Amino acid sequence: MNHTYPYFGVNFKVYPKTIGTQGLELAKIVERVQNETGTNFVVTPQIPDVRMVATETDVTVSSPHVDAASPGRGIGKVLPETLADAGVAGATINHAENRDTLTDIAKKIERCAEAGVDSAICVDSIEMGRAVATLDPDALIYEKPEDISTDRAITTTHPERVERFVEMIDETNPRTKVLVGGGIRTAEHVRAAFELGADATGAASAISTADDPYERLTEIAAAMPE
Amino acid sequence: MNHTYPYFGVNFKVYPKTIGTQGLELAKIVERVQNETGTNFVVTPQIPDVRMVATETDVTVSSPHVDAASPGRGIGKVLPETLADAGVAGATINHAENRDTLTDIAKKIERCAEAGVDSAICVDSIEMGRAVATLDPDALIYEKPEDISTDRAITTTHPERVERFVEMIDETNPRTKVLVGGGIRTAEHVRAAFELGADATGAASAISTADDPYERLTEIAAAMPE
Amino acid sequence: MNHTYPYFGVNFKVYPKTIGTQGLELAKIVERVQNETGTNFVVTPQIPDVRMVATETDVTVSSPHVDAASPGRGIGKVLPETLADAGVAGATINHAENRDTLTDIAKKIERCAEAGVDSAICVDSIEMGRAVATLDPDALIYEKPEDISTDRAITTTHPERVERFVEMIDETNPRTKVLVGGGIRTAEHVRAAFELGADATGAASAISTADDPYERLTEIAAAMPE
Amino acid sequence: MNHTYPYFGVNFKVYPKTIGTQGLELAKIVERVQNETGTNFVVTPQIPDVRMVATETDVTVSSPHVDAASPGRGIGKVLPETLADAGVAGATINHAENRDTLTDIAKKIERCAEAGVDSAICVDSIEMGRAVATLDPDALIYEKPEDISTDRAITTTHPERVERFVEMIDETNPRTKVLVGGGIRTAEHVRAAFELGADATGAASAISTADDPYERLTEIAAAMPE
Repeated sequence: MNHTYPYFGVNFKVYPKTIGTQGLELAKIVERVQNETGTNFVVTPQIPDVRMVATETDVTVSSPHVDAASPGRGIGKVLPETLADAGVAGATINHAENRDTLTDIAKKIERCAEAGVDSAICVDSIEMGRAVATLDPDALIYEKPEDISTDRAITTTHPERVERFVEMIDETNPRTKVLVGGGIRTAEHVRAAFELGADATGAASAISTADDPYERLTEIAAAMPE
Repeated sequence: MNHTYPYFGVNFKVYPKTIGTQGLELAKIVERVQNETGTNFVVTPQIPDVRMVATETDVTVSSPHVDAASPGRGIGKVLPETLADAGVAGATINHAENRDTLTDIAKKIERCAEAGVDSAICVDSIEMGRAVATLDPDALIYEKPEDISTDRAITTTHPERVERFVEMIDETNPRTKVLVGGGIRTAEHVRAAFELGADATGAASAISTADDPYERLTEIAAAMPE
Repeated sequence: MNHTYPYFGVNFKVYPKTIGTQGLELAKIVERVQNETGTNFVVTPQIPDVRMVATETDVTVSSPHVDAASPGRGIGKVLPETLADAGVAGATINHAENRDTLTDIAKKIERCAEAGVDSAICVDSIEMGRAVATLDPDALIYEKPEDISTDRAITTTHPERVERFVEMIDETNPRTKVLVGGGIRTAEHVRAAFELGADATGAASAISTADDPYERLTEIAAAMPE
Repeated sequence: MNHTYPYFGVNFKVYPKTIGTQGLELAKIVERVQNETGTNFVVTPQIPDVRMVATETDVTVSSPHVDAASPGRGIGKVLPETLADAGVAGATINHAENRDTLTDIAKKIERCAEAGVDSAICVDSIEMGRAVATLDPDALIYEKPEDISTDRAITTTHPERVERFVEMIDETNPRTKVLVGGGIRTAEHVRAAFELGADATGAASAISTADDPYERLTEIAAAMPE
């Protein structure tokens, strides 16, 4: 596994201030907070930018997408091998805005393992999490689509669900890490996530659209476990 | 329009020897032939590599994919703005291995125009070409899916179709450039393409899997119009 | 062409009161209004119900979906031949909730023509309409996705767009019929549609979720051209 | 659960001789063999034909497709409620030619349960089977895509895989039934399927394209367990 836990993930999505060189600036802010606080961060830039961010910062980089493809004839596919070559440590699979077939989830987990890229699969229920856990992914990202881009973090609205999710993984596949996301905005949300047993947490809009991401990240860093 | 015509396009697809730093080496071979011969080339690297190739070579770079997305919440999408920021000049749309909805073709053409990226839409018939030409793309790529990765170039097997395609564009939207592809492998195929009226042509496997791409590209350069 | 123009279309979608035998009851109400008023109607039931409605009523039946498939190995595909065998006169293609690739739109138009089923392609702009018109469909359905299930009928909010759409078809492919939809609810909306040059119009929620569809349809029939 | 086990399934797919009234004739041949031999059959006609076959024969009918939709605005969707109203007992989900997202597989299982339709999910490996078994489907259809339409039945080429699949279900969710398919053509294939522990088996091309389906089905019936 490439990722070091615990960590706080910053998903750039395709927000305006994360495009290209502006995205690199945001990654450098994350790097600065990481250096100042000792907190472990992971950034997820836009696909055409992952190599630049991995090359020009010390922050661990994850890809927002990977395809179930193998080297060969395909076009426009994001190969895990190309991500690995670019210095990318992991890839997000089955995001709520881009659902994968079960066949592709299984193949992506396998292909990522072959290429040395950590696989992180998004699920929105304990049932889906249990199903995917049988396929032995490196991580599960537990988030409710309806919480994304809101301030209703599941860690405070439904803490018991997070606890049950963590218990389910402990029973079925303790090797798999659990990241809790969706509406995470405040230091309190972050603290709650780790108290409930998560291995990682993260945010997208809360950082990518923040007026002062440095300040926000510094607050979050203070809430992270050592 | 960013592209200069005529040109010969080299599509890396996801062939093994085009991954990351190996892909950059291939792009540098293209650059060398471009410098030695004065022929105009365009390379289409893998998505995570487009910025690196655009930064580290003088060859015009095109993206194998672009999404119909706008800056905002989306994840894993390839924005035309991010391609432009990366120094990418154009994007391939509706490739035979990745067909787009008509709605998305229309939106991609519009979004590429807004971001300053040339749009090139793949079509496999004169009828499809005529339909897409009404949407005013910068270029059409006319290739038969069944010719891809073979040596049956349409320029020699069905030259009359290429002529009729070029005539159709001249009548309906003369601003739109025509690239003829699919099975292009030899200097003879290339010469035929331009004699039939194409503005550009190109290849994928013929270069990306070649034992000596430098030699192959030099032969092709000699067949290009001045 | 199987359809007789002008007509008013009643699209059942998958509203609760249109399921199976309840859908047949709704179709019989449409039949009754057709018989009483002499107005020409077309109903679009749910796919598993098209044969029953075509067999047990005299109303013209259209399918809400058809696949770009040919007889053979495929599974779960809706063949135009099977629709024709079931007595279905037409099929809706590229609906806003189910967009098709351009390749499939072209193939569906061709396959429907082979099987003797009228093709009706949904488009949401004059530009998309012009592109599809080049593929020679039997009909275009012009509706804005944002108007669907509202009471903002384009015929009253933007009558000039309907006029320009009709003019565009008259210039490019006068054989193709134009149905205007999206938010059509009242006799006034219907009257406006035909005054603006439409060949047909129709509704989904306005009838399928109406307390008294008989009354609503009778009002609409009175607004139809003779 | 609507289905009675063991059974032999006849999947019409969209083969030419299964369209509409010809498909009904094939279903009546299945019914005749069922009546003569006492063997339990299930037929899977084309979607527009399921109601007719369910109404006009005594054979249990399954649908080749169901959507993850609920009654409401959608168009062209196959609701489990509409299938139930049509007398359909079950539905095939995630067929190799039409893979579903994991989210949709979970939702389809749930929606089918709500509507009283048996859910049968296609999987091509023990790993995928284990993942789906956690979602509590009524049945799993274990078949290799590469065996479909061949005569390489997994029951004779890899009997140990079938045994391990059956063991996996016995351990994880013994309520779920196992149908083994893909390349099943002969009485010997059928006998092997049940000896290896399958609850059901079936065929598509072996019956749908047979010169004499009556004869073929009678042979198969003789190989079925009592």
